[in-house]
Amino acid sequence: MKKVLVVNGPNLNMLGRREPAIYGSDSLATIEARLKALTGELDVKLEFFQSNHEGAIIDAIHATFSNHDGIVINPGAFTHYSYAIRDALAAVRVPFVEIHISNVHAREAFRHTSVLAALAVGQISGLGVYGYELALRGLLRSLES
Amino acid sequence: MKKVLVVNGPNLNMLGRREPAIYGSDSLATIEARLKALTGELDVKLEFFQSNHEGAIIDAIHATFSNHDGIVINPGAFTHYSYAIRDALAAVRVPFVEIHISNVHAREAFRHTSVLAALAVGQISGLGVYGYELALRGLLRSLES
Amino acid sequence: MKKVLVVNGPNLNMLGRREPAIYGSDSLATIEARLKALTGELDVKLEFFQSNHEGAIIDAIHATFSNHDGIVINPGAFTHYSYAIRDALAAVRVPFVEIHISNVHAREAFRHTSVLAALAVGQISGLGVYGYELALRGLLRSLES
Amino acid sequence: MKKVLVVNGPNLNMLGRREPAIYGSDSLATIEARLKALTGELDVKLEFFQSNHEGAIIDAIHATFSNHDGIVINPGAFTHYSYAIRDALAAVRVPFVEIHISNVHAREAFRHTSVLAALAVGQISGLGVYGYELALRGLLRSLES
Amino acid sequence: MKKVLVVNGPNLNMLGRREPAIYGSDSLATIEARLKALTGELDVKLEFFQSNHEGAIIDAIHATFSNHDGIVINPGAFTHYSYAIRDALAAVRVPFVEIHISNVHAREAFRHTSVLAALAVGQISGLGVYGYELALRGLLRSLES
Amino acid sequence: MKKVLVVNGPNLNMLGRREPAIYGSDSLATIEARLKALTGELDVKLEFFQSNHEGAIIDAIHATFSNHDGIVINPGAFTHYSYAIRDALAAVRVPFVEIHISNVHAREAFRHTSVLAALAVGQISGLGVYGYELALRGLLRSLES
Amino acid sequence: MKKVLVVNGPNLNMLGRREPAIYGSDSLATIEARLKALTGELDVKLEFFQSNHEGAIIDAIHATFSNHDGIVINPGAFTHYSYAIRDALAAVRVPFVEIHISNVHAREAFRHTSVLAALAVGQISGLGVYGYELALRGLLRSLES
Amino acid sequence: MKKVLVVNGPNLNMLGRREPAIYGSDSLATIEARLKALTGELDVKLEFFQSNHEGAIIDAIHATFSNHDGIVINPGAFTHYSYAIRDALAAVRVPFVEIHISNVHAREAFRHTSVLAALAVGQISGLGVYGYELALRGLLRSLES
Amino acid sequence: MKKVLVVNGPNLNMLGRREPAIYGSDSLATIEARLKALTGELDVKLEFFQSNHEGAIIDAIHATFSNHDGIVINPGAFTHYSYAIRDALAAVRVPFVEIHISNVHAREAFRHTSVLAALAVGQISGLGVYGYELALRGLLRSLES
Amino acid sequence: MKKVLVVNGPNLNMLGRREPAIYGSDSLATIEARLKALTGELDVKLEFFQSNHEGAIIDAIHATFSNHDGIVINPGAFTHYSYAIRDALAAVRVPFVEIHISNVHAREAFRHTSVLAALAVGQISGLGVYGYELALRGLLRSLES
Amino acid sequence: MKKVLVVNGPNLNMLGRREPAIYGSDSLATIEARLKALTGELDVKLEFFQSNHEGAIIDAIHATFSNHDGIVINPGAFTHYSYAIRDALAAVRVPFVEIHISNVHAREAFRHTSVLAALAVGQISGLGVYGYELALRGLLRSLES
Amino acid sequence: MKKVLVVNGPNLNMLGRREPAIYGSDSLATIEARLKALTGELDVKLEFFQSNHEGAIIDAIHATFSNHDGIVINPGAFTHYSYAIRDALAAVRVPFVEIHISNVHAREAFRHTSVLAALAVGQISGLGVYGYELALRGLLRSLES
Repeated sequence: MKKVLVVNGPNLNMLGRREPAIYGSDSLATIEARLKALTGELDVKLEFFQSNHEGAIIDAIHATFSNHDGIVINPGAFTHYSYAIRDALAAVRVPFVEIHISNVHAREAFRHTSVLAALAVGQISGLGVYGYELALRGLLRSLES
Repeated sequence: MKKVLVVNGPNLNMLGRREPAIYGSDSLATIEARLKALTGELDVKLEFFQSNHEGAIIDAIHATFSNHDGIVINPGAFTHYSYAIRDALAAVRVPFVEIHISNVHAREAFRHTSVLAALAVGQISGLGVYGYELALRGLLRSLES
Repeated sequence: MKKVLVVNGPNLNMLGRREPAIYGSDSLATIEARLKALTGELDVKLEFFQSNHEGAIIDAIHATFSNHDGIVINPGAFTHYSYAIRDALAAVRVPFVEIHISNVHAREAFRHTSVLAALAVGQISGLGVYGYELALRGLLRSLES
Repeated sequence: MKKVLVVNGPNLNMLGRREPAIYGSDSLATIEARLKALTGELDVKLEFFQSNHEGAIIDAIHATFSNHDGIVINPGAFTHYSYAIRDALAAVRVPFVEIHISNVHAREAFRHTSVLAALAVGQISGLGVYGYELALRGLLRSLES
Repeated sequence: MKKVLVVNGPNLNMLGRREPAIYGSDSLATIEARLKALTGELDVKLEFFQSNHEGAIIDAIHATFSNHDGIVINPGAFTHYSYAIRDALAAVRVPFVEIHISNVHAREAFRHTSVLAALAVGQISGLGVYGYELALRGLLRSLES
Repeated sequence: MKKVLVVNGPNLNMLGRREPAIYGSDSLATIEARLKALTGELDVKLEFFQSNHEGAIIDAIHATFSNHDGIVINPGAFTHYSYAIRDALAAVRVPFVEIHISNVHAREAFRHTSVLAALAVGQISGLGVYGYELALRGLLRSLES
Repeated sequence: MKKVLVVNGPNLNMLGRREPAIYGSDSLATIEARLKALTGELDVKLEFFQSNHEGAIIDAIHATFSNHDGIVINPGAFTHYSYAIRDALAAVRVPFVEIHISNVHAREAFRHTSVLAALAVGQISGLGVYGYELALRGLLRSLES
Repeated sequence: MKKVLVVNGPNLNMLGRREPAIYGSDSLATIEARLKALTGELDVKLEFFQSNHEGAIIDAIHATFSNHDGIVINPGAFTHYSYAIRDALAAVRVPFVEIHISNVHAREAFRHTSVLAALAVGQISGLGVYGYELALRGLLRSLES
Repeated sequence: MKKVLVVNGPNLNMLGRREPAIYGSDSLATIEARLKALTGELDVKLEFFQSNHEGAIIDAIHATFSNHDGIVINPGAFTHYSYAIRDALAAVRVPFVEIHISNVHAREAFRHTSVLAALAVGQISGLGVYGYELALRGLLRSLES
Repeated sequence: MKKVLVVNGPNLNMLGRREPAIYGSDSLATIEARLKALTGELDVKLEFFQSNHEGAIIDAIHATFSNHDGIVINPGAFTHYSYAIRDALAAVRVPFVEIHISNVHAREAFRHTSVLAALAVGQISGLGVYGYELALRGLLRSLES
Repeated sequence: MKKVLVVNGPNLNMLGRREPAIYGSDSLATIEARLKALTGELDVKLEFFQSNHEGAIIDAIHATFSNHDGIVINPGAFTHYSYAIRDALAAVRVPFVEIHISNVHAREAFRHTSVLAALAVGQISGLGVYGYELALRGLLRSLES
Repeated sequence: MKKVLVVNGPNLNMLGRREPAIYGSDSLATIEARLKALTGELDVKLEFFQSNHEGAIIDAIHATFSNHDGIVINPGAFTHYSYAIRDALAAVRVPFVEIHISNVHAREAFRHTSVLAALAVGQISGLGVYGYELALRGLLRSLES
């Protein structure tokens, strides 16, 4: 059985309340519950972490070293500038999939660049909160190969 | 039942033979067969189109006007410069998901930009040929909302 | 009597159905009919060509060599990247006027650049489908001088 | 009957004497006379204004507020940097067409950018002094719709 | 008692009539009256100047040399390109505060740059016509230190 | 009575001791005391928050959701790169005014860009610690309209 | 005996008639005849292909897979933007030499960049139609090593 | 005898009073007197013009058409953005030398670019007010050849 | 005796485990022990601080104010974007040397820029963990002068 | 009989020893011997010059003035920045062909630009040391026309 | 009596023979003779140095340290990239005037930038070989002040 | 015993006399003497080379091929543009450490880029002439591993 950490970055604790026209009305708890409902089918153990603190996210990523098989991460705005999170992901060498709820390519120019994506297995954006499930499935499939 | 066109752009007819270290060893026929196997579960009718000709892809997109519910498209290298395909997608107003087999963000700089993505529902990259299934699932889910 | 080819590029076959808020509700057939109605007044013979295929447009431009006196061209999205069409227009040395239905300068940044315009007699944009008539009149006037 | 102001910017008082290889040999008076000759056919009242002073052009544009139906403007070199004229045109909300005698896209790079065009109905360039007549016709046609 | 010149640049004579969604419905006369009402409280003598002519604004700034203690200036669109006004402000060495009614940082990219601001005491934007009062207070406070 | 949070970002706890030639000799406590002295006149309830931790600032901004009427924020160096704080401000939809003690436009190039300002009501810079009072007044005035 | 495909891109069918001051007066047929005359000396089998259609060129390149030993290609204007042809050349892994009749570095800026050259064995430009012979010799020599 | 117009642009009326560390302590009147003192030796008739108004400078340049043999111009800050003055100088085709009192290359970046210099006979900068005499001598010498 | 703080930024707690091909196999504890072994020879008191939290590093830097003589800092990825740490270092005015274990100039482009270096005494990179000793020696030598 | 100078720039004296994976194992002496072996067939007199000193190369180019019919030059790294060599080649007006052993377009970005190529007859790259022979043949052929 | 070194950089030994349409027909010897003829009038001792070798020019500049009062330098193409000559001029702290025979601003873009000019007293360009005399006069005048 | 060449580039012969505020008052002879004093302790044989001539430095670097174990190089201004020295260092494959006396990151923008550093073992800047000793120690330590 694989062990996967699901990381959510800054402001994702506001999901459901935050700009619902962009991010939808589901809360983070709802998303996590839906993912948990899949663990049987997918033969995976999930852990969840959310923080608005870059340093806390780095600490959480470090804790996956020799401990987890993969990471699903929605880095929020850290996507666009946190080279420190990039280095953390490189340091632990745990495969990860990057997920964005909204279509970042249809929004402000600064959202078009991810400083993490070059290290990712892959990236999913714009498919709403359902993207988390797709990211998890994509991650697990990539771990098989 | 939804009707979806799956479009593959230039050089994707070479899948399996083309740079297998990057694109894997599955042929396009295999991918299409796998997607067809999902049509019952997903209650969707699929059509497939591949061409190395930009104009033929535009013609195929035009044919979806008032006729299809969605498009899954791997535009190949046209991703990076075909404003004509962008205009075709805008003209027919059919929702589409953009899929890339490889992680375009980990490759040459010119692959980091998609001239289509701003109009897409969403984008998936780097999850291998399995990404087609995820794109189809993501597209269908977005059509429900 | 002058002989002029009117070329329409990709997606202009969708006129009337395509984004009417931007391009208006007239079809390409209507536009061509209106231009034909002017041939008596303007003492000009008109031929029409539309394609979504860059290569077909190049072939059509080649056919004007030593054969036509001028070209009115709405290159659609090829305006912004088809250096091959640019070379075709340079090769045949037939004077041409570039026409855009919408005001390209009020739209996305990529539409602000034309790779053809440096070789044109002139350019008209934003005056709707009526711009075709103005382009034809402007072309014919420039051929007199 | 529509009322239209025709504005000519800096150095256009030199027309006929100024770089005739680029701008032709017609004087501004000749151009204005030709436009006046069209007022009957076009059912339009024309006023003319030329100045080398940016501030005077702004004052003239302000005077069209609630007073004119449209503006035909050849901003000369102000095209490329006068954000003050841009703001004046935005302030009065009078539709305008931008006209350039020469093909600005075939000349120095600084002439390829217009700071006004994004607010215009449309733009005509390269069709010589005949472009004024086309601009007037295009403006009037756009006012009908 | 301090003596302050309040300068308004191009198109600000249109205040109240010009794009009220952006600039509000107060006229320039109203703003000046409100500022005058503060002169007792603030122990300041105010003079007002508005022009759409860059040269006239330069002349007015020159007149403050050895004559005024400070300038409150809304340079309008000259903010973005008038190096001549910048040089005038440097020449007279009179401290000035730059004020913009709208939030220039939330508008077109060309409005994000001020060629004057590096020489200013400070800058206020987005606080509506009330910003003039704040600018005056800020200027006077800075003159005390 | 309005409720306003005053947020100070990194290094502002060093005010008075930090580069006094740039930031003056007042401490943050002094500034806060001065603002408190205005609460009667301005009919406002003020809360204060300072942190050198981006995540703590995001948490504090989240706490204003449905709880405060406005924010006065001096984001310090986070002004120039914290898209996470930008997203937090967008998430809570609480109007805010951005304040800088020094004239950021007269300093290093990186200080000329604010990633927050496009979402602000307005921005004040260069008017020293007195700018906090102006920002508060400007914010409250904007809440009235 | 080696087997080599000689590909000519858009507008090269116009050779001899097209801008002779730049491209010379030899037709493509003449060039091909000259190359054929070398096949004995060079112990090579040559095939020729010309098209103005990007897709047709891609198809022709695909046909070299496991079939040809090398390609001599004059991509015409596709040199500067056809990432699809680039991908086709990468897909078939057939060594190729890029040839330009004119000195592209002495012409417009857009001609200074080749999106194909990074994958080529080498590049020849400016040596006229004689460059085809040099390209063929160079390709064959590189195949020996 | 040659006839030369000496043009001084914005803020040069402030010479002697304006930033003397940069521009020196001579007034414009002193400079003009010194130049007049050379007219006998140099067999030249001099006229002088200074304005802070771009339009007035354009008018003055127009007046040299068929009337003066050369222009010595210190365009002040208009050097860096007045394409209208550039067009005026091109329109009259009177040879001109551009002079700057200070070394513009040692100052702010915006002063490093002259939009006029490409049309000038030559340019002198950094040699103080003595540069006017050198510019005049250089202009007259170039008129001989 | 001098007092020096040795600061290590994000991911440096992973040293030895993190990408050993780049960073070597020594742990941070080993490095600190080696530095401590030098304190006698160098007559220096060392303190050590590591954090993945930008805010915590800022707090630690603040604590050096009037307390330490110098700082040796390996800012990790914060090197490239933490203007807040830059401001902290400027605020305390404690001389610092920047050290990087790997040769940042031979790695990704984003690592070529340090937002701190302009304020540093000096910078050392690429000399492995031995660079810490060199940085300390360099810092102490600079404090003597 | 034509007289041609073959110039080799910096580090080419290290050929055979220098990075053989890129430049091959032939020495410069070998290359020169091969070229000499062609002089009979090609009816050409060859001279050879190599230097690591830019000034010495300029001197050698000057010596071709009115003395040689052509130059084959491998400028080594001077290709990318020696405007002085460019000026030397322009000064003597001797036709030259630029040759690079490796495919410069497949290497570091700085190698993609040649400051000489705009003045060359043509350029050859990537065809190994055999490129010298091709360059010589191409040069001689161009001298015939 | 002042002592001035006149330095000429690469290719200026070709003056008179080199591109006479740009540089005129005077040789360097003629220019030096004309300058020598002025030494009496100007009370100056002149020395001359020309080299195509950057290093030799640096050596010559070093020799002016504590030895010459000024330098007139035409750096030729080194103007645009020789930071080493820039450093040499900074090292000796001898005032210098930069002279260009042609109008560098009317030529290729790379000639528009001087890496030396920021350190110069001033710069003269476009006034032909007469510019040397003007440069010498300007230098001597600046030494008086 | 290791053998190391210490290379000093242009203007470093002026050390002690050149801009002492930036480079200190030690001469190059002093630096070399200090390094020599370390040879016993470090078990190293040192050779020294200084030149203002790029070509001479390249020759000296070539001489290290198969002859020296390492290079300590202060390339002076060649740091920023000498791709020829870069190629020389690559050609000989001798490990080198780059040293700058001043903190190049705190000076002009052109000094922030080193075209050599990507090939270096490491780089030291800003630690004064003591940096040479640190560079030597760092180089020797890296040779051990």
